[in-house]
Amino acid sequence: MKAAFIANGQVGVGELADPTPGRGQALVRTHVCGLCASDQHFLSGGHNLIALSRKLGGPYAALDFARPFVPGHEYVGEVLDYGPGSRRSVRPGRRVVSVPIMRQGGSHAVVGYSHQCPGGFGELMLLDEDFLIEVPDALPDDYAALVEPLAVGLEHARRGRPDKGDAALVLGCGAIGLGVIAGLKLIGVGPIVAADFHPARRDLAIAAGAHIAIDPREGDPYAPLPAFDGRRVNLIYECVGQPGMLQRIVEAAPFDGRIVMGGYCMEAESLYVFAAQNKRLNIQFAGGEEPQDMDLALRAIADGRIDVTPWLGGRIGLGEVADAVANLSGPTAPVRTLVDPRLG
Amino acid sequence: MKAAFIANGQVGVGELADPTPGRGQALVRTHVCGLCASDQHFLSGGHNLIALSRKLGGPYAALDFARPFVPGHEYVGEVLDYGPGSRRSVRPGRRVVSVPIMRQGGSHAVVGYSHQCPGGFGELMLLDEDFLIEVPDALPDDYAALVEPLAVGLEHARRGRPDKGDAALVLGCGAIGLGVIAGLKLIGVGPIVAADFHPARRDLAIAAGAHIAIDPREGDPYAPLPAFDGRRVNLIYECVGQPGMLQRIVEAAPFDGRIVMGGYCMEAESLYVFAAQNKRLNIQFAGGEEPQDMDLALRAIADGRIDVTPWLGGRIGLGEVADAVANLSGPTAPVRTLVDPRLG
Repeated sequence: MKAAFIANGQVGVGELADPTPGRGQALVRTHVCGLCASDQHFLSGGHNLIALSRKLGGPYAALDFARPFVPGHEYVGEVLDYGPGSRRSVRPGRRVVSVPIMRQGGSHAVVGYSHQCPGGFGELMLLDEDFLIEVPDALPDDYAALVEPLAVGLEHARRGRPDKGDAALVLGCGAIGLGVIAGLKLIGVGPIVAADFHPARRDLAIAAGAHIAIDPREGDPYAPLPAFDGRRVNLIYECVGQPGMLQRIVEAAPFDGRIVMGGYCMEAESLYVFAAQNKRLNIQFAGGEEPQDMDLALRAIADGRIDVTPWLGGRIGLGEVADAVANLSGPTAPVRTLVDPRLG
Repeated sequence: MKAAFIANGQVGVGELADPTPGRGQALVRTHVCGLCASDQHFLSGGHNLIALSRKLGGPYAALDFARPFVPGHEYVGEVLDYGPGSRRSVRPGRRVVSVPIMRQGGSHAVVGYSHQCPGGFGELMLLDEDFLIEVPDALPDDYAALVEPLAVGLEHARRGRPDKGDAALVLGCGAIGLGVIAGLKLIGVGPIVAADFHPARRDLAIAAGAHIAIDPREGDPYAPLPAFDGRRVNLIYECVGQPGMLQRIVEAAPFDGRIVMGGYCMEAESLYVFAAQNKRLNIQFAGGEEPQDMDLALRAIADGRIDVTPWLGGRIGLGEVADAVANLSGPTAPVRTLVDPRLG
């Protein structure tokens, strides 16, 4: 199959062996697959990511830095076939999304960060048949590819145990922060304050359901909110993933505040436990979606409760992946660029 | 009045001006007052404690390092009089304990860490009349002085939101860790695993209600528990307060584990957010007791549900405070040494 792959921290494109589905595995032809910042992390600090994952239990533990793997975990594709003894949970020809997890004995691989389970930047994938979620006919591929990143935001939102009495702050309005905002809006949380340096991202935050969007260089996102009876935010979502965020949030948070750490930061954070104790803070670490989050994301996109249209960038072919990964962030980058391996 | 005080990081003893109760304040004659590790912290790193408290909002913010203050926040004493306009909530002559907080306008002082509100290492104290809790006649002074440190442990236990389905681990079996164990036992949590380097502390942990007490140099406190169907601890209380504890707990905790940070650590901790995210951990920071915790601690000691007899060390006079503070920790130190300012 044709695929874009990463080896030695560099993106390549070429022919790889077609994957063969084993027991419990579906063979799936990729339609489109989103580019995620996690893929970019791998180019700049791949050795560190693998070492940390091995030491601390992360998704990159099984990777060999020098061997090619096919990234892409925000995919939609079409079931072609199944491995031996399958219960063939979704009919061949139907489209599916899934949590990017492949169970292997008592362990699991992460689809897109595995030498055995190529991700959506290749023509063919292997997926765990028990995790397949069928995509309704009416939902276009590009929207289906946003189910996974939206589900991550919904998981983060959920793990903060939000309720209508909370005033939320979402720091960072990439796909994950926008998903958190959308999830909080579904629950009826208000006010929702969003903070991002980039005006385009603040506009997206408002479109997703934020009541107020602040440039943190110009306003204090923790300040009392005149439009909401002077309330202050008490439930803070970190969706940036830069070093130093944790201690800054701890210093700014109110007494009894709750913090959800969603951004993937691969460096050690410095934290004064004493500062967090003085305010009786709670920190919930959020990691990734579960099947319930995928279900909700798919239903909410399909029935229009969450409109992800503004997140959609263009489609690119495999030959454009290297440039796109290198330029993933930045003020004008779309929330999601989609890779279509059929474009070559 | 006679008092032991701290100035410039050194303990002194001498005559200080008698405090005069203001509006809302009770004048109280100290009976006895426990020595706490927080007092010792002040001798070794007082400048740092004050600077950190000013920056991060801690209890030492109002102190001037060079000016004397009278420590002691684990006190029992007898009401002598009240300031003007008082509702005289507890009759003079009756004994009281309280949370060591004195409200001052919209702010508050911490009794024992304030130049205005001397603590229990002096003959006289000023306490907030609204926080006084009357001590029943049958409860001896030495037991009443343990209400405050026990209440801190009960607060820590409570903030972990424990329930009967949890398997708890308490790291460090000083007064706070022992109080956590006693609080978990009250709720019916089991198993409770305790960990401490010192055999005497492990014995106290068992006496307080731990089912298993482990020397962490000899056994892994996170290992499956054969006596409890191979269960693993999922609710971990940090009651040590040494740098490095947080990251070590994060690395050892199970998926979905909950951590309560109780130990006062005045140095920055290093934390891999990534490691905590991979396990979806929750960290609750615990700080100090509230009136409800004082109430429960007093009732549980008075009615015998929590037996703090094994915590009791001897009584010392003011002249012995300097040595006692310097030798507060260590394998053979009692859980609590009590200062009786009447002994001189």
